[in-house]
Amino acid sequence: MLDSVLIWADKNHRRWLEDLRHWLAIPSVSTQESHDADVAAAAEWAMFNLRGIGLTAELIPTARHPCVFATTPADLCPPQAPHILFYGHYDVQPAQIEDGWATPPFTPTVKNGDLIARGASDDKGQVHAHLAALLAWREIASELPVRLTVLLEGEEEIGSINLPTVLKQRKDELKSAQSLIISDCNQFAPGVPAITCGLRGLMYYQMDMHGPAADLHSGLFGGAVANPANALVEMLSRMHDGQGRVTVPGFYDDVAVVDETLRRQWRSLPFTDDQFAHEAGIKTPFGEAGYTTLERKWIRPTLDINGLWSGYQGPGAKTVLPARASAKLSMRLVPNQDPRKIASAFEAFIQRITPPGVTVTLTALGASSAALTPTDSPAMQAAAEALKIGFGQDPVYVREGGSIPVVGWFKEILGLDAVMLGFGLPDDHIHGPNEKLNLECYYAGIRTAAALYGILGQKLQSR
Amino acid sequence: MLDSVLIWADKNHRRWLEDLRHWLAIPSVSTQESHDADVAAAAEWAMFNLRGIGLTAELIPTARHPCVFATTPADLCPPQAPHILFYGHYDVQPAQIEDGWATPPFTPTVKNGDLIARGASDDKGQVHAHLAALLAWREIASELPVRLTVLLEGEEEIGSINLPTVLKQRKDELKSAQSLIISDCNQFAPGVPAITCGLRGLMYYQMDMHGPAADLHSGLFGGAVANPANALVEMLSRMHDGQGRVTVPGFYDDVAVVDETLRRQWRSLPFTDDQFAHEAGIKTPFGEAGYTTLERKWIRPTLDINGLWSGYQGPGAKTVLPARASAKLSMRLVPNQDPRKIASAFEAFIQRITPPGVTVTLTALGASSAALTPTDSPAMQAAAEALKIGFGQDPVYVREGGSIPVVGWFKEILGLDAVMLGFGLPDDHIHGPNEKLNLECYYAGIRTAAALYGILGQKLQSR
Repeated sequence: MLDSVLIWADKNHRRWLEDLRHWLAIPSVSTQESHDADVAAAAEWAMFNLRGIGLTAELIPTARHPCVFATTPADLCPPQAPHILFYGHYDVQPAQIEDGWATPPFTPTVKNGDLIARGASDDKGQVHAHLAALLAWREIASELPVRLTVLLEGEEEIGSINLPTVLKQRKDELKSAQSLIISDCNQFAPGVPAITCGLRGLMYYQMDMHGPAADLHSGLFGGAVANPANALVEMLSRMHDGQGRVTVPGFYDDVAVVDETLRRQWRSLPFTDDQFAHEAGIKTPFGEAGYTTLERKWIRPTLDINGLWSGYQGPGAKTVLPARASAKLSMRLVPNQDPRKIASAFEAFIQRITPPGVTVTLTALGASSAALTPTDSPAMQAAAEALKIGFGQDPVYVREGGSIPVVGWFKEILGLDAVMLGFGLPDDHIHGPNEKLNLECYYAGIRTAAALYGILGQKLQSR
Repeated sequence: MLDSVLIWADKNHRRWLEDLRHWLAIPSVSTQESHDADVAAAAEWAMFNLRGIGLTAELIPTARHPCVFATTPADLCPPQAPHILFYGHYDVQPAQIEDGWATPPFTPTVKNGDLIARGASDDKGQVHAHLAALLAWREIASELPVRLTVLLEGEEEIGSINLPTVLKQRKDELKSAQSLIISDCNQFAPGVPAITCGLRGLMYYQMDMHGPAADLHSGLFGGAVANPANALVEMLSRMHDGQGRVTVPGFYDDVAVVDETLRRQWRSLPFTDDQFAHEAGIKTPFGEAGYTTLERKWIRPTLDINGLWSGYQGPGAKTVLPARASAKLSMRLVPNQDPRKIASAFEAFIQRITPPGVTVTLTALGASSAALTPTDSPAMQAAAEALKIGFGQDPVYVREGGSIPVVGWFKEILGLDAVMLGFGLPDDHIHGPNEKLNLECYYAGIRTAAALYGILGQKLQSR
């Protein structure tokens, strides 16, 4: 049956593309209130599309943008079909042609085998590959091979702020799900499909240094008053040693050791520092001594300054001795690091290194643990088989340096590990101008999704 | 004759005050283009006022705001009268009642013996004390005791950008001046008049750190890419040691040693750290080990961060690995430090401590030497005698931690040392809301100015 589904899916490339274009044309920019109506329209588009497949679809309102929620009616899947949850998002990053787009970002355009539009890769295009696969199953098999629940959110690009509430509200309907599928990530390289089985966690802080009650004249007071900007850089500089290691006491105590076999496998991946430097827009990679670039991104924790501000930032000279200096900083955490323990260590360290004459306020702005999905589960095996069918290549198992808080919430609230298989490519320019999805990847993604649901329907039993 | 001038000046307090109110009512805010017409009006007000005294006054146009320039006709002073240059400025800092003013900033208001208005102390009120004194001489003696040139600029609050050009244009008329008088400063404390005989110099830099070509995602790239904000704080932190000393090699090599007698005199000035901390809005002073607060302000060089910016400064968390990080920083210089030598040492130091993976651009935003006026010149002695007459107290000789670039330009272009005697008080809130000039100080300033010109006319001979 899967073969027929795949053949039919491949025959309908033009149909999928036309359908996806309509969705991409809706500028569902979640962070800009002027686009609120567009966000709602994109949600409705997805709801009607899911109903067209035969699912029971509704919108779940939240404090900001709705979630699209769809379930499989009893007569649309076998009685013993496993319950699978698919998560994606229909909101997109802001985009304006002035940012450097060659074509209008919300006028989807095919060029050199790429579909160019905001959201093409992140995440409408990848979600749509699943929608197309489901429609193919419905058309050819008259039913879906799994009892699917689809949850599409409209706030992924603004921190998924209301998703935990929705997960808790719908916990009764979701708790029987046996597997969670997410396609909001990339292949490792062109022709190298990947399963993402690890993510770093995140601790984010704002640090505010307070000096004099108001800005002072740096001539009249300089030298005799503690300058909070001087103090801030002094403190921030004490967080790394000369080897690129973080000096917060205890920071590395619990870091999971990655066995040499895995590290050796990673070293054989098609990856070069030159290629990475090109993608990053740098001359040469830089990081903690003793680790490769992939290891620095995947399995080593970091501390990075994400923002700095103090005093005068305008043109020319202003001789101000600032009253205040602030930084945003974040630590990427790796498996086994406990965000609470790291937070305590960090806050104690800050207290200890605060110089005289200034005070510090620390504000925590989010904490999430690293995620590591076991690769030997039936769902992960199904994903590997599906990628082989879809892309004609065995996938590699990779990690990602970023943090996807929703993955942590699914685990925490529903106990679900995420199977992350993405159809994008590392150079898709997500969040930047000229975002694209390669059409071959898109069509391979449709085949992969079709195969995945078919294999999951065979491998997993309803519980 | 001076006695009669002083008596008449004292009799006319109401007249002076009414006259000054008109000038203060003109919002001559030089930095805001919306006030350009007001700046021009304030310049014209001064020109007509100087003509009323009998001087030949004109406006000198510049690329931005005009200078008021007035000379003494041959029949308005004795043939052998010395040539004296008086400098002041008629522009003011921005002020809006919303900034925290108790009364409208350009509606001069008398309250508790203070005249409250933007510019009351900085510098219209102090300049007007001189205008009043000159009118008193004209009225009582029918002539001025000196051959005075008055130069009032309209750009002091925006860096005196066009003043060097004007000084060079008018060098022929100015080069015969024997002394330069400036009243744009303060008494040391209430009842303690002062002559400011030293200023710190200034070197100002913008430092731009460049990392990746564009902002990166701190999860996807963090740990494997040099973060220019991390690099910036690392470099900035290396500019001080644990004792508050600047670590730029050679920084202190040429610092003038101040003899113990002078330091002992300063220690007997009516000054306490508590009072300073109160004025600065801090708990306790902080600075280089081994020096008093006044010494840290007056005779020790500094390096202060005046501005910092990088990455994300908004609310909440944004996981950006910034492409760029910048700082404004300035060094206050003391006598004998050569700005060129310090600049070379600083720039070489920056080059040496730049970590791998980032590049630095340094932009110099101004350099001026420290100024030190010998206290034993006839003009300084005249100023001391005049302050004793005006305020009833011998003045103290002080320095100031700030830098007045015009003082350096007068020295460089015209070879003139500035005699700086101010009528303001340290708590006049210049540049802040509720700027004021104490009326007793104002009237004492008029007496002082009248006495000063009288004494200069006697002490100095035309050369």
